[in-house]
Amino acid sequence: MTPTLLEDLLHEVAAGRLSPVKAVDRLRRLPFEDLSFARVDHHRALRQGHPEVIFCAGKTVEQVVLIAERLVEANGAFLGTRATDAMATALQARFPGLEWNPLARTVHLPACPPAPRRAVGTILVISAGTSDLPVAEEAAVTAEAFGHTVARLCDVGVAGIHRLLAANERLQEADVVIVAAGMEGALPSVVGGLVRVPVIAVPTSVGYGASFGGLAALLAMLNSCAAGVTVVNIDNGFGAAAAASRILGA
Amino acid sequence: MTPTLLEDLLHEVAAGRLSPVKAVDRLRRLPFEDLSFARVDHHRALRQGHPEVIFCAGKTVEQVVLIAERLVEANGAFLGTRATDAMATALQARFPGLEWNPLARTVHLPACPPAPRRAVGTILVISAGTSDLPVAEEAAVTAEAFGHTVARLCDVGVAGIHRLLAANERLQEADVVIVAAGMEGALPSVVGGLVRVPVIAVPTSVGYGASFGGLAALLAMLNSCAAGVTVVNIDNGFGAAAAASRILGA
Amino acid sequence: MTPTLLEDLLHEVAAGRLSPVKAVDRLRRLPFEDLSFARVDHHRALRQGHPEVIFCAGKTVEQVVLIAERLVEANGAFLGTRATDAMATALQARFPGLEWNPLARTVHLPACPPAPRRAVGTILVISAGTSDLPVAEEAAVTAEAFGHTVARLCDVGVAGIHRLLAANERLQEADVVIVAAGMEGALPSVVGGLVRVPVIAVPTSVGYGASFGGLAALLAMLNSCAAGVTVVNIDNGFGAAAAASRILGA
Amino acid sequence: MTPTLLEDLLHEVAAGRLSPVKAVDRLRRLPFEDLSFARVDHHRALRQGHPEVIFCAGKTVEQVVLIAERLVEANGAFLGTRATDAMATALQARFPGLEWNPLARTVHLPACPPAPRRAVGTILVISAGTSDLPVAEEAAVTAEAFGHTVARLCDVGVAGIHRLLAANERLQEADVVIVAAGMEGALPSVVGGLVRVPVIAVPTSVGYGASFGGLAALLAMLNSCAAGVTVVNIDNGFGAAAAASRILGA
Amino acid sequence: MTPTLLEDLLHEVAAGRLSPVKAVDRLRRLPFEDLSFARVDHHRALRQGHPEVIFCAGKTVEQVVLIAERLVEANGAFLGTRATDAMATALQARFPGLEWNPLARTVHLPACPPAPRRAVGTILVISAGTSDLPVAEEAAVTAEAFGHTVARLCDVGVAGIHRLLAANERLQEADVVIVAAGMEGALPSVVGGLVRVPVIAVPTSVGYGASFGGLAALLAMLNSCAAGVTVVNIDNGFGAAAAASRILGA
Amino acid sequence: MTPTLLEDLLHEVAAGRLSPVKAVDRLRRLPFEDLSFARVDHHRALRQGHPEVIFCAGKTVEQVVLIAERLVEANGAFLGTRATDAMATALQARFPGLEWNPLARTVHLPACPPAPRRAVGTILVISAGTSDLPVAEEAAVTAEAFGHTVARLCDVGVAGIHRLLAANERLQEADVVIVAAGMEGALPSVVGGLVRVPVIAVPTSVGYGASFGGLAALLAMLNSCAAGVTVVNIDNGFGAAAAASRILGA
Amino acid sequence: MTPTLLEDLLHEVAAGRLSPVKAVDRLRRLPFEDLSFARVDHHRALRQGHPEVIFCAGKTVEQVVLIAERLVEANGAFLGTRATDAMATALQARFPGLEWNPLARTVHLPACPPAPRRAVGTILVISAGTSDLPVAEEAAVTAEAFGHTVARLCDVGVAGIHRLLAANERLQEADVVIVAAGMEGALPSVVGGLVRVPVIAVPTSVGYGASFGGLAALLAMLNSCAAGVTVVNIDNGFGAAAAASRILGA
Amino acid sequence: MTPTLLEDLLHEVAAGRLSPVKAVDRLRRLPFEDLSFARVDHHRALRQGHPEVIFCAGKTVEQVVLIAERLVEANGAFLGTRATDAMATALQARFPGLEWNPLARTVHLPACPPAPRRAVGTILVISAGTSDLPVAEEAAVTAEAFGHTVARLCDVGVAGIHRLLAANERLQEADVVIVAAGMEGALPSVVGGLVRVPVIAVPTSVGYGASFGGLAALLAMLNSCAAGVTVVNIDNGFGAAAAASRILGA
Repeated sequence: MTPTLLEDLLHEVAAGRLSPVKAVDRLRRLPFEDLSFARVDHHRALRQGHPEVIFCAGKTVEQVVLIAERLVEANGAFLGTRATDAMATALQARFPGLEWNPLARTVHLPACPPAPRRAVGTILVISAGTSDLPVAEEAAVTAEAFGHTVARLCDVGVAGIHRLLAANERLQEADVVIVAAGMEGALPSVVGGLVRVPVIAVPTSVGYGASFGGLAALLAMLNSCAAGVTVVNIDNGFGAAAAASRILGA
Repeated sequence: MTPTLLEDLLHEVAAGRLSPVKAVDRLRRLPFEDLSFARVDHHRALRQGHPEVIFCAGKTVEQVVLIAERLVEANGAFLGTRATDAMATALQARFPGLEWNPLARTVHLPACPPAPRRAVGTILVISAGTSDLPVAEEAAVTAEAFGHTVARLCDVGVAGIHRLLAANERLQEADVVIVAAGMEGALPSVVGGLVRVPVIAVPTSVGYGASFGGLAALLAMLNSCAAGVTVVNIDNGFGAAAAASRILGA
Repeated sequence: MTPTLLEDLLHEVAAGRLSPVKAVDRLRRLPFEDLSFARVDHHRALRQGHPEVIFCAGKTVEQVVLIAERLVEANGAFLGTRATDAMATALQARFPGLEWNPLARTVHLPACPPAPRRAVGTILVISAGTSDLPVAEEAAVTAEAFGHTVARLCDVGVAGIHRLLAANERLQEADVVIVAAGMEGALPSVVGGLVRVPVIAVPTSVGYGASFGGLAALLAMLNSCAAGVTVVNIDNGFGAAAAASRILGA
Repeated sequence: MTPTLLEDLLHEVAAGRLSPVKAVDRLRRLPFEDLSFARVDHHRALRQGHPEVIFCAGKTVEQVVLIAERLVEANGAFLGTRATDAMATALQARFPGLEWNPLARTVHLPACPPAPRRAVGTILVISAGTSDLPVAEEAAVTAEAFGHTVARLCDVGVAGIHRLLAANERLQEADVVIVAAGMEGALPSVVGGLVRVPVIAVPTSVGYGASFGGLAALLAMLNSCAAGVTVVNIDNGFGAAAAASRILGA
Repeated sequence: MTPTLLEDLLHEVAAGRLSPVKAVDRLRRLPFEDLSFARVDHHRALRQGHPEVIFCAGKTVEQVVLIAERLVEANGAFLGTRATDAMATALQARFPGLEWNPLARTVHLPACPPAPRRAVGTILVISAGTSDLPVAEEAAVTAEAFGHTVARLCDVGVAGIHRLLAANERLQEADVVIVAAGMEGALPSVVGGLVRVPVIAVPTSVGYGASFGGLAALLAMLNSCAAGVTVVNIDNGFGAAAAASRILGA
Repeated sequence: MTPTLLEDLLHEVAAGRLSPVKAVDRLRRLPFEDLSFARVDHHRALRQGHPEVIFCAGKTVEQVVLIAERLVEANGAFLGTRATDAMATALQARFPGLEWNPLARTVHLPACPPAPRRAVGTILVISAGTSDLPVAEEAAVTAEAFGHTVARLCDVGVAGIHRLLAANERLQEADVVIVAAGMEGALPSVVGGLVRVPVIAVPTSVGYGASFGGLAALLAMLNSCAAGVTVVNIDNGFGAAAAASRILGA
Repeated sequence: MTPTLLEDLLHEVAAGRLSPVKAVDRLRRLPFEDLSFARVDHHRALRQGHPEVIFCAGKTVEQVVLIAERLVEANGAFLGTRATDAMATALQARFPGLEWNPLARTVHLPACPPAPRRAVGTILVISAGTSDLPVAEEAAVTAEAFGHTVARLCDVGVAGIHRLLAANERLQEADVVIVAAGMEGALPSVVGGLVRVPVIAVPTSVGYGASFGGLAALLAMLNSCAAGVTVVNIDNGFGAAAAASRILGA
Repeated sequence: MTPTLLEDLLHEVAAGRLSPVKAVDRLRRLPFEDLSFARVDHHRALRQGHPEVIFCAGKTVEQVVLIAERLVEANGAFLGTRATDAMATALQARFPGLEWNPLARTVHLPACPPAPRRAVGTILVISAGTSDLPVAEEAAVTAEAFGHTVARLCDVGVAGIHRLLAANERLQEADVVIVAAGMEGALPSVVGGLVRVPVIAVPTSVGYGASFGGLAALLAMLNSCAAGVTVVNIDNGFGAAAAASRILGA
């Protein structure tokens, strides 16, 4: 309920075109209207810069399809994360243009014609090892769906540091860097020391024994000796992309 | 060792002005030179966008003064965090222009003439409660020392949500938001839902019993339901400011 | 063994109608009799205000049906929580009037004629997200089975705070509020600041990575900055309803 | 900002007595006014049923006295928790009528004439051992300051269960029961099985070794087999009293 | 290698009936012989008072049958814990006299004729709830297989404390008490206050949410306010029986 | 309230010498009488086999002296654990016969004439290292105060296993073994394999870094591969002695 | 990029046989070439002393076969750990000479002719119990594949310490000792006290209840009272072998 | 008790020069003799390759001096770790030749004439930051006291990776590398990828907030992606040196 909207409404009252009782009612309902499903989405797009995303985990195939249909009605597009094969199959049957990335577990129906690519910057998504790729890809696909340009750099873990140093130029060209790493989670510290742009660290649950489901990498990243590295939840590639999108002014 | 530098050096060799043996030696030393104290600082300024900062905790008063002196020689300025009263007193005796903020536990000797204020954006530093102020102030003072414009918003915890909503305009004017909160650490989630710019959450160790020294707030922030909120270490106001500085293109 | 019962027994002894030896025996057995299955139930109803509830998890279908039959004999009604589909199917075959709520995983055979609805107050059950609904519904169904009036409010997580504020009137009408939330568990703090009636927080295991099975939400709720919010175990919708029932004088 | 207030304001606009621009301004400021210190307190009293309480821990003596003075100006009374001896001494010098309870670490200046005692019910505060008394007393003093009638029962730990059973009548007379216990935290389960009124469990940090600062008692209470027992933070006697006050309709 | 054995051997040497070299060899082998499978068992029976027990978890059906056969050869009897249905079926086919307890997950082939029951005392095995029965039964069956007299007391959780008090006479008749309890693990504290004989507490993994797989009960039992209660590992009914057997002088 | 007492009372009623109303009153009070301070102690001595012990930690010097005086009045003796030097000095001034053990932090006033030494068995108290001695001594002094014969074995940690093996005869002579160990807490497992009598393991907080205040030793002892080893709380030498005393039929 | 290679390249430039621009290009690519799959392997063999190992967990059968093929092309040999039966079957079909160890879950294709066995020392792999064998065997097979001589010692847990002492001669012959143990993880401490060569401790996840997936053993080993024992991750037999190989100068 | 010693003894018996009874006695005492203080030390030197070390923490100044005196009597030298200033002062007064390193908190009295330096290899001790120096120095001083050659490399944390790469030659010259690092503990992974010799990682408690006293670094090091890195306890520089000494064949 922006000041402008409120002023308009009050002018209506002042002009006698709206009774105080009805004005109260409308005022009360204005914030309510975004409770209806389609408006929620619209409102979020205005507020957050990108449409609502379906977090598919824990939902039935039917629920996912239903939500996707309503988002398509409203926006002509949708993005879903943590989609199972069954969900992807059902959605492909319903939406022929669907882009399914099984590694990233994402389903994306792009707008048609596609939204113009935002030119403001490049998000570099780095993964420490091949096992971190599902999380890194979730970040990459989400960022692309939000309209950003994405570069990828894979398998540059710190135990073979020359692999990362060899990619220095690509590091320097990025505007935001997302680093997905499991095990000891050391890569964001090294990257953070090499670039001056924002570095978003994503701990992954890759590892065994005393990795405790990603806790080791999470703690390491929070304690990074590279100043200004920030962290998101374990395996949360989507969250990292959302953070990068906030930075690039999505 | 940028490609340009390397090309120059190789042209010297090609021109016979530098023998291969000496070239090898210089190549090996080039990256070494930044090991000398003053150069380290210079190098970091180039690489990271801001000079080295003294983390005073665990150092003696003498060590802090000595390091400050070397930084002043190199840069004419320095910033120290977690400074004790004794450190601040000793530094004030040595550097009359010192700015000491006892709440933030920071000591700052600005450059003279002062570095021009960077115009690119405003960092809004929010604290949930008055007990979170030392952490919030560490973030604010650091950001100012790095050349940014800082706004502050205090005591807007979620148990009196109207206090935050009343400040909505200030929220909307920020380019980056830092949120320091202890106890249940809920504030970044609410702020993250109200703004579309980057939100950096700083859990504080404020609380008792089952806050476990800030763990409760840390976990809450990592699990924020507001997409794209990122997190730094407990009580790490400096890190939050460094992250904000990366975002604003420090 | 209430004082009245004891006095009656002693009068029998004083009147010579009961020998001291038999009295001792009966005294010893009196508290034992409620060990027989039917009396246990009766006794609890007197003591706690509601009949025994079957916690179905970890029991066989046969065991659940058997216990249900004995409760029906004693009370003409029963409530079961954490019921599987197989349990519900078997119980429906046995008790045609069974009410099965698959989302809440509850099975309820109401008394016939139904117990009069208790008029003393309304329990508002709030869920932060749709994934918290099973826990919220377990609370709601339990409260209704205990004879209370229940209102529901869904999907009002703190990242879109306007959704909760829009429901302010419904919040103000409640006599007790149960709030089920996973992830960062921030909703009870916000609700606790908006109402003056009791707020019972139920952390849910919804979330991934560093939610650690609901630990993040649990710690957040225990550290709520809203004074007087109380907490039950993770996913314990039943316990929240039982607490609300204690409050309303069930 | 109640609907009534809003309707009045809109009637003013409709009647031409208030310009739309000024109305917008007043609407924006209405919720702001409770940001001024004295009003905050007033607003909370309306919203929560009791005035703001000073959490003295981590504040200086001067800050505590200053805040107390402002609360006295507004309400003629105040309550402080976790007060040090130095704070109490300074406050006694300033407010001769101050009631200081060193065991509970509370400072209370009652209103004069005293607020009428609320008649609606009795809060029974139980402590498992003598070491739990500081927490139990914090709860008792807070509840009394909020206008409730308080009864106390001490040193009835479960290892000598007859002590608790002997106090059964006092248990049955309570309207709300607060149970403070450290070590294994078993007492709330036993109490919860004996009474049908609300039971609020307060884990204390009493214990050593594997009590881990109250964690053992906290977990035990969250897992209570007595249905409907709720829990507050470790050592949080104030929070338990606030919860009890919500229940009794403070 | 008892002194007697050693003296005998040395007398052989002194008498010239055994060469020093052979004596060294035999000395070295004497402790080794118990490495051969059958002797291990014999040796342990001497050292620990009961034959080796098969911990079936993580073994194949074939391995379990093979080990059982070797134990029967040596002792004419065996006990297995954590046996699956498949293991029990295979063992029953092989040993018609097998006693299988599916609830306790034990398989026991008693000696024939049975070993005389040891008369020295009674082990009372108490379970807090029906869900704790598998652990309690593992303790009971193990104790019986070790030759002890066992009494059982079920479903006497602390939330209905009268059930335990009603069984006071049985408590007083026990020589050792084993208490299996999950959730808040409070029962051993209450029992420990009622009896003066040894109390062995077994935390069970029964519970959900913040029971964290039995951690809550474990910590509670370690912090018992009843002096002299000891604790074994979570769900370790076997260990509790072995401890009781040590006490009764097995 | 033994059956005998109850029968007597009922005979009084049957004989008309006691009215039913008074009988009810007396029945209710009988268990109450042990609430008076002196009787509590008496009652515990009957119920638990040893008088109440003062846990001095967290008490003032005055409180400790007062409690000691009341125990001396009732029993002519007392034992206190975790006594500070100040407490011991004050108690020595008041009770010339006091035995103060600064290493064990115990204060003991033996009965005069001394209680006859119980002949039933020997408790062997083993400490892994010299740093574990305070905990081991607390166990030894407590056991002696409870009337038991105590033997000691020091500094036999597992890293020099021959030291333990050399003491095998002393191990075999013990009737109960208490083992205090910090760091990796391995000693009880080795001891448990060498003796067939009860072994009570006491983890100590000795160690640094990843011992986490005794957690490492605690977990190790709970997971002992020697069947039938039981565990008490970290640093709880008193609890181990109380457990040993239960075993020896104190 | 060794100094020699660099000097050669610079001589080429100095001699005019290589233009500076091309030299820069080659310099940049030199470290890149080991990014191509086959060279990575070669490079690691030079740097670490053994070829790359396939960690099969989390890979598909096809991926494993593909990687194995490329390693065979480059080296004529490969080693895989954590291989499933399906992987082993597929690899056996493809490489007839494959050595599959189902207990260790390893697949190994030795070079043909086999690499000469390194003579420098013996690695003794000890397992505390039979359940620790998979981890111990992973260590043993890996060490053998790296060219070392391996000895094995099984089932020598500390609860029967004589079994370990009986093997003293084998202990004294080892050059490096790897000790795999679960439960209380005490074996490395005892072994560390018996030998003076390096001891590498591998905690296993064997155990239940409070072993917390190997945490108990891990903490015990980190706190070993035997000086100089080092630790690798839970269940990480491969890592222990790699560490032993570093020690023996692989 | 080596076989040789045993054979000698048996020959004595066979020759009639030693009676069987006396032989038994001597056999029993042989392993006992190293229980006397001086022999313990001697024995350890033989068994472990270096004399006993005084862990001064938790000892009194008097105890430390006394132990030092006995070690000097036996060996003419000693090493103490975690020594306070008071201990060092007292020891210096007693032993003029004492070498005190306040940063490492070590006190060392070298043998006179000094033991010949062992020539077998160099231990490189690396510290990530200046705050890790006390731990690194404890390792370095211990290694030197054990007779090894030590090199040092300081302040080469991963956030400025070029500093480490610049020291590559020194890395390659080491025979064993000890890496002390706090915060995210990433340095051992990078070092482990650069060298093929043994790498011993020492997590330090340096860091704040979510470093949890070194837990973050410990977990990171245990999860190192560089194969064959081993780990010792938090802050345990002594343990790392002892491990290195085992490797170099001390």
